[in-house]
Amino acid sequence: MRTLDFYFDYISPYAYFSWLKVGALCQKYDVELQAHPVVFGKLLDHWGQLGPAEVRPKKAALYRYCDRYARLHGFDFNPPARHPYNPLPALRLSLPEVCGTGHQHRLISAIFEAGWSRGADLSCRDTLAGILQEQGLDSEYLLTTIDSDAVKQALKYSTEQAIRRDVFGVPTFIIDDQLFWGNDQLEHIELYLQGNDPLDADWVDELLVRDRGIDRKSFLARQAPD
Amino acid sequence: MRTLDFYFDYISPYAYFSWLKVGALCQKYDVELQAHPVVFGKLLDHWGQLGPAEVRPKKAALYRYCDRYARLHGFDFNPPARHPYNPLPALRLSLPEVCGTGHQHRLISAIFEAGWSRGADLSCRDTLAGILQEQGLDSEYLLTTIDSDAVKQALKYSTEQAIRRDVFGVPTFIIDDQLFWGNDQLEHIELYLQGNDPLDADWVDELLVRDRGIDRKSFLARQAPD
Repeated sequence: MRTLDFYFDYISPYAYFSWLKVGALCQKYDVELQAHPVVFGKLLDHWGQLGPAEVRPKKAALYRYCDRYARLHGFDFNPPARHPYNPLPALRLSLPEVCGTGHQHRLISAIFEAGWSRGADLSCRDTLAGILQEQGLDSEYLLTTIDSDAVKQALKYSTEQAIRRDVFGVPTFIIDDQLFWGNDQLEHIELYLQGNDPLDADWVDELLVRDRGIDRKSFLARQAPD
Repeated sequence: MRTLDFYFDYISPYAYFSWLKVGALCQKYDVELQAHPVVFGKLLDHWGQLGPAEVRPKKAALYRYCDRYARLHGFDFNPPARHPYNPLPALRLSLPEVCGTGHQHRLISAIFEAGWSRGADLSCRDTLAGILQEQGLDSEYLLTTIDSDAVKQALKYSTEQAIRRDVFGVPTFIIDDQLFWGNDQLEHIELYLQGNDPLDADWVDELLVRDRGIDRKSFLARQAPD
């Protein structure tokens, strides 16, 4: 069975939007959905980027975009009470080895929904306990588990594995080593799954080895060997 | 008459894609299209961001996206021979005070098309001369003009004005002080022009003054007063 790897962090509204749709897409094309919590801040650190919430007018523009998007699609846009926030407890709970493979997708849905449609503070352990209980999960046990070194390492490993696969943002989807980034890629992903991918991969490979003409000093400085 | 301000740099394929559509949109809703060349690299410098071409896997993912997008929309995706490249001569030529208001839109179309559908080297003055001649413009005169301090200042001013209006990327569209960023915003722009904007602006303003919970060190360092 084919697998679609879905890399996400609860910090991202686009990850939420695409989570609402990717499950049905996988079912339609008989693809196994594997959900990988990763730390978006660590991806930014690794690739030297800023997140959308770190550029004032970008955050404002994207919140307006998200509000329009949510209203057009018929759901509420009410982001986590504080944003950005510490997503580590929520991400660690969502590792399949913590919450259990059979519960994982349901828990992810519940956390995303609480955070982005009901304005829950996803950095707050009491809030997370409430969500876990609503899902019939043992909140006390799970919230203790995530403080173990093994679980901390597991999230770190998940993030490092994502970086090794060239994941630079969330949501990212990988199928058959094809990387798609962003909620707006679902249409292209569906074409790919149908066998109707319009991409000419050889042509794009040719483009990617063309020379660079000029680079900013700040870019070149980061490329220099340490 | 209402005005739509379109901020662009020839460095961006998304600016090209949206240029292909924004003219018809403005005509449909009787809006005057004002095209503003700006230096994307200076926007990145100002906001402390990296461009898509400055993160290796992001450039690769976006080129694949662009190739799919172009094929689905029935045109060629053949980016400028070297990329990134120095866009300053092309941008300066495209200032209305240089090429003439009456020629500006046509010239922008020609430069974008040569660069992104025919792989022309847009940093090359001979290439630009050829494009100007095809448009019946005096290439020798114009390519001399753009070396004047006045023209250099005009492009700098255009970029600074954009930053003052919170432009952080290209393409950006501003109508009635509403800022839209990115090719994928054209659908929302059309709703706005129709008077059907789903946005609840007061609600988003409330969201934007909510507290931040946590920030990366690299973000905080940049916010510190010099």
